[in-house]
Amino acid sequence: MRFAIPPAGAVAVLFLSVRNAMDASGYSAAAAQMEAAAASIPGFIGFTAARGSDGVGIAVSYWADEAAALAWRDQADHARVRDQGRAIWYDHYCVSIAQVTRAYHWDRPPE
Amino acid sequence: MRFAIPPAGAVAVLFLSVRNAMDASGYSAAAAQMEAAAASIPGFIGFTAARGSDGVGIAVSYWADEAAALAWRDQADHARVRDQGRAIWYDHYCVSIAQVTRAYHWDRPPE
Repeated sequence: MRFAIPPAGAVAVLFLSVRNAMDASGYSAAAAQMEAAAASIPGFIGFTAARGSDGVGIAVSYWADEAAALAWRDQADHARVRDQGRAIWYDHYCVSIAQVTRAYHWDRPPE
Repeated sequence: MRFAIPPAGAVAVLFLSVRNAMDASGYSAAAAQMEAAAASIPGFIGFTAARGSDGVGIAVSYWADEAAALAWRDQADHARVRDQGRAIWYDHYCVSIAQVTRAYHWDRPPE
């Protein structure tokens, strides 16, 4: 897989969270739905998520501009899943919104 | 655990990577060293990392300003470990630098 490379001026939404042990199947289904829901919003650039066995997870989404990031915040399914997250899945989270100044990438050269 | 909450104006360094299966023990040791090395730099605010079983990982560090983020980029141990990463551990990565505009957090209320 390769990550989307955000252009300068893109808006990054960083979601750092600590999961508890509740409702693993419901959580997994919702996480997959959220990735698809994000990708359907105009101005979507990319979404990447990772969670380790310690329960700490990070999701990064990149958006063309602030309006697109706000559309993601206000998306109805996303709002509903946020409510579920506070009711069930998360013990703690931090959301940061940041504007990209630069980005670069590296790929392993073919052998 | 609780995440550091970056103030507006902080600099976020986002490292998205795809690990291969090479040298798991060397990688784990270096990852722990990098977190400690970052925390020793003036202007460090916080560091969080997660990697899932699919090999996709995200590390987010927050810095008080651009100078602190550049000091992290130029830190000697960090530069050495980046070289190892390209030589051995990673198949692909993307680094983004972004300036925080706002952040908020949530904690589960006591039962």
